[in-house]
Amino acid sequence: MEKLIYRFNNKGSQSSLNSKDILGGKGANLAQMAKLGLPVPPGFTISTKVCEYFYKNNKKIPKKIISQTKKEVSIIEKITKKKLGDLSNPLLISVRSGARFSMPGMMDTILNLGLNDKTVIALKKNTSNGRFAKDCYRRFIQMYGSVVLGIESYLFEELIENFKLTKGVIKDTELNEHDWDGLIKNFKEIIKQKTKKNFPQNVNEQLWGAISAVFLSWNSKRAKIYRKINYLPDHWGTAVNVQAMVFGNMGNDCATGVAFTRNPSTGKKEIFGEYLINAQGEDVVAGTRTPKNLLSMSSSMNKIFLKLKKIFNQLEKKYKDMQDIEFTVENNKLWMLQTRSGKRTARAAIKIAVDMVQEKLISKKEAILRIDANTLDTLLHPTLDEKAEKKIIASGLPASPGAASGKVTFSADEAERLKDQMQDTILVRIETSPEDINGMHAAKGILTARGGMTSHAAVVARGMGKPCVSGSSGIEIDYEKKIFKSGNYIIKEADIITIDGGSGKIMLGEVPTVKPDISGDFSKIMKWADKYRKLKVRTNSETPADTKIARDFGAEGIGLCRTEHMFFDEKRIISVRQMILSKTLDDRKNALAKLLPYQRKDFIEIFKIMSGLPVTVRLLDPPLHEFLPKTEKDIDGITKELNMSNQSIKSRISELHEQNPMLGHRGCRLGISFPEIYKMQCQAIFEALAECKKKKIKPVIPEIMIPLVSTAAEIKILRKLVDETAEEIQKIHSVKIKYYVGTMIELPRAALRAKDIARYADFFSFGTNDLTQTTFGISRDDSGKFLNDYVENKIFYKDPFISIDERGVGELIKVATERGRMQKKSLKLGICGEHGGDPSSIDFCEKTKLNYVSCSPYRVPIARLSAAQAYLKKINNFN
Amino acid sequence: MEKLIYRFNNKGSQSSLNSKDILGGKGANLAQMAKLGLPVPPGFTISTKVCEYFYKNNKKIPKKIISQTKKEVSIIEKITKKKLGDLSNPLLISVRSGARFSMPGMMDTILNLGLNDKTVIALKKNTSNGRFAKDCYRRFIQMYGSVVLGIESYLFEELIENFKLTKGVIKDTELNEHDWDGLIKNFKEIIKQKTKKNFPQNVNEQLWGAISAVFLSWNSKRAKIYRKINYLPDHWGTAVNVQAMVFGNMGNDCATGVAFTRNPSTGKKEIFGEYLINAQGEDVVAGTRTPKNLLSMSSSMNKIFLKLKKIFNQLEKKYKDMQDIEFTVENNKLWMLQTRSGKRTARAAIKIAVDMVQEKLISKKEAILRIDANTLDTLLHPTLDEKAEKKIIASGLPASPGAASGKVTFSADEAERLKDQMQDTILVRIETSPEDINGMHAAKGILTARGGMTSHAAVVARGMGKPCVSGSSGIEIDYEKKIFKSGNYIIKEADIITIDGGSGKIMLGEVPTVKPDISGDFSKIMKWADKYRKLKVRTNSETPADTKIARDFGAEGIGLCRTEHMFFDEKRIISVRQMILSKTLDDRKNALAKLLPYQRKDFIEIFKIMSGLPVTVRLLDPPLHEFLPKTEKDIDGITKELNMSNQSIKSRISELHEQNPMLGHRGCRLGISFPEIYKMQCQAIFEALAECKKKKIKPVIPEIMIPLVSTAAEIKILRKLVDETAEEIQKIHSVKIKYYVGTMIELPRAALRAKDIARYADFFSFGTNDLTQTTFGISRDDSGKFLNDYVENKIFYKDPFISIDERGVGELIKVATERGRMQKKSLKLGICGEHGGDPSSIDFCEKTKLNYVSCSPYRVPIARLSAAQAYLKKINNFN
Repeated sequence: MEKLIYRFNNKGSQSSLNSKDILGGKGANLAQMAKLGLPVPPGFTISTKVCEYFYKNNKKIPKKIISQTKKEVSIIEKITKKKLGDLSNPLLISVRSGARFSMPGMMDTILNLGLNDKTVIALKKNTSNGRFAKDCYRRFIQMYGSVVLGIESYLFEELIENFKLTKGVIKDTELNEHDWDGLIKNFKEIIKQKTKKNFPQNVNEQLWGAISAVFLSWNSKRAKIYRKINYLPDHWGTAVNVQAMVFGNMGNDCATGVAFTRNPSTGKKEIFGEYLINAQGEDVVAGTRTPKNLLSMSSSMNKIFLKLKKIFNQLEKKYKDMQDIEFTVENNKLWMLQTRSGKRTARAAIKIAVDMVQEKLISKKEAILRIDANTLDTLLHPTLDEKAEKKIIASGLPASPGAASGKVTFSADEAERLKDQMQDTILVRIETSPEDINGMHAAKGILTARGGMTSHAAVVARGMGKPCVSGSSGIEIDYEKKIFKSGNYIIKEADIITIDGGSGKIMLGEVPTVKPDISGDFSKIMKWADKYRKLKVRTNSETPADTKIARDFGAEGIGLCRTEHMFFDEKRIISVRQMILSKTLDDRKNALAKLLPYQRKDFIEIFKIMSGLPVTVRLLDPPLHEFLPKTEKDIDGITKELNMSNQSIKSRISELHEQNPMLGHRGCRLGISFPEIYKMQCQAIFEALAECKKKKIKPVIPEIMIPLVSTAAEIKILRKLVDETAEEIQKIHSVKIKYYVGTMIELPRAALRAKDIARYADFFSFGTNDLTQTTFGISRDDSGKFLNDYVENKIFYKDPFISIDERGVGELIKVATERGRMQKKSLKLGICGEHGGDPSSIDFCEKTKLNYVSCSPYRVPIARLSAAQAYLKKINNFN
Repeated sequence: MEKLIYRFNNKGSQSSLNSKDILGGKGANLAQMAKLGLPVPPGFTISTKVCEYFYKNNKKIPKKIISQTKKEVSIIEKITKKKLGDLSNPLLISVRSGARFSMPGMMDTILNLGLNDKTVIALKKNTSNGRFAKDCYRRFIQMYGSVVLGIESYLFEELIENFKLTKGVIKDTELNEHDWDGLIKNFKEIIKQKTKKNFPQNVNEQLWGAISAVFLSWNSKRAKIYRKINYLPDHWGTAVNVQAMVFGNMGNDCATGVAFTRNPSTGKKEIFGEYLINAQGEDVVAGTRTPKNLLSMSSSMNKIFLKLKKIFNQLEKKYKDMQDIEFTVENNKLWMLQTRSGKRTARAAIKIAVDMVQEKLISKKEAILRIDANTLDTLLHPTLDEKAEKKIIASGLPASPGAASGKVTFSADEAERLKDQMQDTILVRIETSPEDINGMHAAKGILTARGGMTSHAAVVARGMGKPCVSGSSGIEIDYEKKIFKSGNYIIKEADIITIDGGSGKIMLGEVPTVKPDISGDFSKIMKWADKYRKLKVRTNSETPADTKIARDFGAEGIGLCRTEHMFFDEKRIISVRQMILSKTLDDRKNALAKLLPYQRKDFIEIFKIMSGLPVTVRLLDPPLHEFLPKTEKDIDGITKELNMSNQSIKSRISELHEQNPMLGHRGCRLGISFPEIYKMQCQAIFEALAECKKKKIKPVIPEIMIPLVSTAAEIKILRKLVDETAEEIQKIHSVKIKYYVGTMIELPRAALRAKDIARYADFFSFGTNDLTQTTFGISRDDSGKFLNDYVENKIFYKDPFISIDERGVGELIKVATERGRMQKKSLKLGICGEHGGDPSSIDFCEKTKLNYVSCSPYRVPIARLSAAQAYLKKINNFN
């Protein structure tokens, strides 16, 4: 018989495989804790497989698990000496979701199951605590009502709030047993009214309803969005964990808490957690009561605190990773409810990885693989300039580090709308809930008025690598008026603020930033990564400033220096335009002669900075019309400067107009039509090299790149032009210059004809932006109109402009690599599209055995780490 | 030792291989005639290989052929009993070019070589004809001067013309020996003046100069252009034929002529030729004297005429093809100078092929292979409507059949310029010369005032399949004023005229045309072709008129019915615009409901015509903005009709604007974003089918085609939509409809992922227009700006939008075919790009084992023939 249910309790666990795939993350970790002999409330896990059967069975509980489930409940009953629905000693249980991958707050949970009008009386008697028993019952009705029966939970909350208002009290704890009795009556009335049925008194009906609800929550809207954002597949399904309840809210010898074994924000090795005396776990997570620092438990519950510290160590040793833990103390007995690998900031990830290597918990290779390269982004971007003047208007908890500026917005939908308009926002909420997930994803940063360091906002923001300041209790948010107040400041929607998630400060306006510091642990990890990677990492850069940043970040050369950006400079654009508007070759040559000294100077500066390293210079690529003026005013402007008639300029502009510029007269097609342009550029490069040589600067290794080649003939012709120019300049300056000539592979035909093309190329650089555009037939500029429909419809699993489409574009890259190397073993291969800084694309480049990747300066460290990870994963696969 | 020179004379020939590659066309045929025992002036052929050596040897005669050449000359001397440069009995020789492929008039020839101041005296003595001898000498100086020494030939012509003016005569024949003596002196002075050297008296110097000049003429500008137009490679090179001179201008028992063994215009089996008594061949070809019909030779030179007739038969039997022959009669002795396969019109090609099958000269298969499918185009286009009123202004010789209308233009350059502007022209010239070749290529038709049926204009026009009226002696052309007169008519440049190359008539204005007749021999060839072809031939058509034409032309279904063309109809466009401008789904559905009846009606009409055959309907493909108004006026127009503000229409237009519409929101991307549009179209198709069924019309086999697919998910989703719609309609109308769903393969990724895509597709149709655009990254709309540079630079051998680029695009087609069939053996494969009507692309489709090609209605017969040729070539290759 197929094993679908796995038991865990004080005797250990049935799971020998410890597999998250079957048990889900929570179930696997509960099983593991039971095996370690930790105090886990007895229970069992219904496997993810059953979730699949559930959906196949028309969203009904599959028959085959019914008797097994009953048997497992009876085992819990035996251990706890309680019985589900028993009138004298009733067992209460929790029913929780648990997918392969943690989806915090996205799926449903039911607590206190087993209570009804009769068992609640037994609970009162056994605990001698009527208020506690009734509170449990109303919580259960409330949860069951909203999760299983689909009643909007604000209806219950409203009743409580109204009652407190009438009674003139503020906190729930101020309500007594009698008060809860009345509310229980009201809650049941709502259920009767909305569902036309009474609240179920049958405990088995309760159980099956709760299990079904957990399975159904796998496909709730918010769970689906979360999976979409995190690229998780829909077919995995969730497991269901059924466990005996333990209570942190039975009195002052009870407590509940969450903890990280290290500081998830800084990575420091210290206990980091929060707890509440006499509370259930949801009170901590939801942020409705502000919890205490866990360290203070050493005075309130010292024995438990010491036990916890020991368990933390035990779990870290077992999992070799920082753990995120939930626990409950019931009448002075500690129960472990959950452990999992804790989410952390990029900075913390680095510190933890480095520390654990020093603690000999993990190897350097493991440390490298432990860091999500994508999250490094948050560390590589500028931080607030300490010297800048700041108008601090409020402060809160430093929940997720990093600085962000943007327009204040009060709703998730608005944040999303503004993101589509390319506007930066700060999402400001009293507290966040799973419904806000879209908006949190869209915003640059998150600010909440309530909630601690482990509140929803804090946890999710850290997971997303977004700056977050939580629990900024000094601010007053008015959703209706769309303002928030802080002292005398009134901040309106669309006002710009800056938040610093590292310090918890909130500032008015946009605060200037400075370059990040990448020394210390960061640099240690980078050095380890460099040791293990095979791929070289270059940068895409065309300004001295960017080139300097990239080299500081460890770039090993330039993989793409776009020469056209140099043309847009104010002083030059007029000569560029003159060149384009020329009617004769001679006029064009005159205009080019004016551009030559500028280009030469550009190259000299860049060559100095990249001294000793390879620099790939791409010759002019965009269609000429991009350089021409667009507005009447600009056209008028150049008529004077160029002494041409308005009419003749306009006619040339309309002559150069293209239907599809992306597929137009650009790239090497310009070099074929106007060889004098490419010749000028080559002259500038070689003269710059000659100049460097004269000044005894260690030369760069120049790689001259011909763009948009689709046939061998193009590069054959243009290579000849480069070679002839090189020869001329070498003769004039009596120098010997070593250089390479190669091509971008950015058209499907170039990939297919790579063998011919390699005859004339010393290197290929995959221009994956254009290659993706032409392979898919999608213009990136225009794709916004339908890309969303494509992601919604699961046509694109990932945006192919972010991560290489391995099955389509990737096949062309593989084909070009094989055929190119077949022709020329020494062919150097790299990638210079924006994919060059994307970890999963870098993984593909390593698998495909390219020589280097090239990415934007700020992504160079990400690429260095990703390259090491890719190599380590690869050799692991083949060892 | 490598054999580089091949002898031919009355003893036969040295060539055993009869290879045009080595001997060139002319040399191979001379060798063949010698073998047949025909009277060929003795000589030898210097092989094409030597041309290669010549260019490698810095354009100098390679040493290794010098002694061989001398030996061969001595053999001619032995046979003719004359000696080169001999003072008493001098040998005169001709030096002619001869490439693998006939390039009429494109390369150089030197006649009468061996004459100098001394040998001319011997010639005079031996022929007792001083005038003849001096005429020969001046011709030789003139030819040698222009061809070898590069002096512009008009300088010589001018001298003759001036002299005739002074003397008061009109024809050359009115000049006597003394006159020529004077002109010879003047000619030699020009040479001295231009070259700073005397005209060479050394006969060996003359010989090497002439051979070099022939080799050099291989790379003359006009020869290069000719090869470019005809897709001939530059590396073939030319052979050189050196032969003893024979003279048609030694008196009235001499003559020279050219002849076709059948009528090259109609194909009729009759001797068709022209000759001149007492003339050299150039006089006939150049059109300077109007020659006589060859049939009249039966009275003037009956014995020679009978001999010629016998030789014509002999040659046709040997070559199994209609021959184009040159001959000379010297003192009543017939000499054969050339035979080659004759150029002919498409109509003649068909008649000759059919006749030769009936004469048992060739098989049906050979007949099929004998016809250049591309030339059929001229027969398939409308001819002049006999009933239309015509204002005939002149007439001439029906030199090349077909009718053409266009603007009168008097220069080749102007014709070319206007073609670039998409304007039709008729090139009107006194006579044409090889320099006019570009303009003849650009013009729709050619009209000359001088020259016969074998003049340059006539021969070239027939080769190009262009209508031509030659020798229209009634018209007077004034190049300077840019007019021509005919009687009282004065036709100015840019006036429109129509020429009918079948009747020789010239008409004012544009004359209406009627559908061509494709019965008789044409239909016979088509039936034979149908027997031998494997590929089915369908048509691209979306109007009932075109569909009818295509079916009459033998189309076996529709391969591409574009539904968007149906949207542009005046009555519908407003609903289309309303649909696009809709802000809500409901508004859009309302607008679509209005379009439904129109679409249904369209389909019913087409389905009736194609009854019983497959019809592939492509769902909406172009981006929606194509349907929106472009001008202010049009926008104003619809504001009223749609009751929308001008501003909101403009904002929607700008919202829909795309940078690169070719790669934008179009094709199935529309179907994903707006499924209701595709649903309406499917509904129209299925309702039309139900309607046909009710009316007992034999149903078409509908194939619903999803455009621009790049992933399997797209077709999976949209196929579901089609299937669901089909089910609905079948239920409503209680009918059972058989249909297929498939996709266009028009993006590189679709080709690569063909295996996945085939899971959801019953057929693939290769959209080679877009596939070529994306594979090359070239927008066809914009390629005009550089395509010319690409052809000039030999980057494109052929325009990839005309013939499939087999090595790039073709690889993707092959990959898609293999992978698609791997998934689904029954997958039906076709091509519907414009390549579907191009013979060389059809050849590729046969090799790739597609099931059908689809082309424009007028190309259906071309495709039928090409498909048969492709199959016959293929089985020949593999038998």
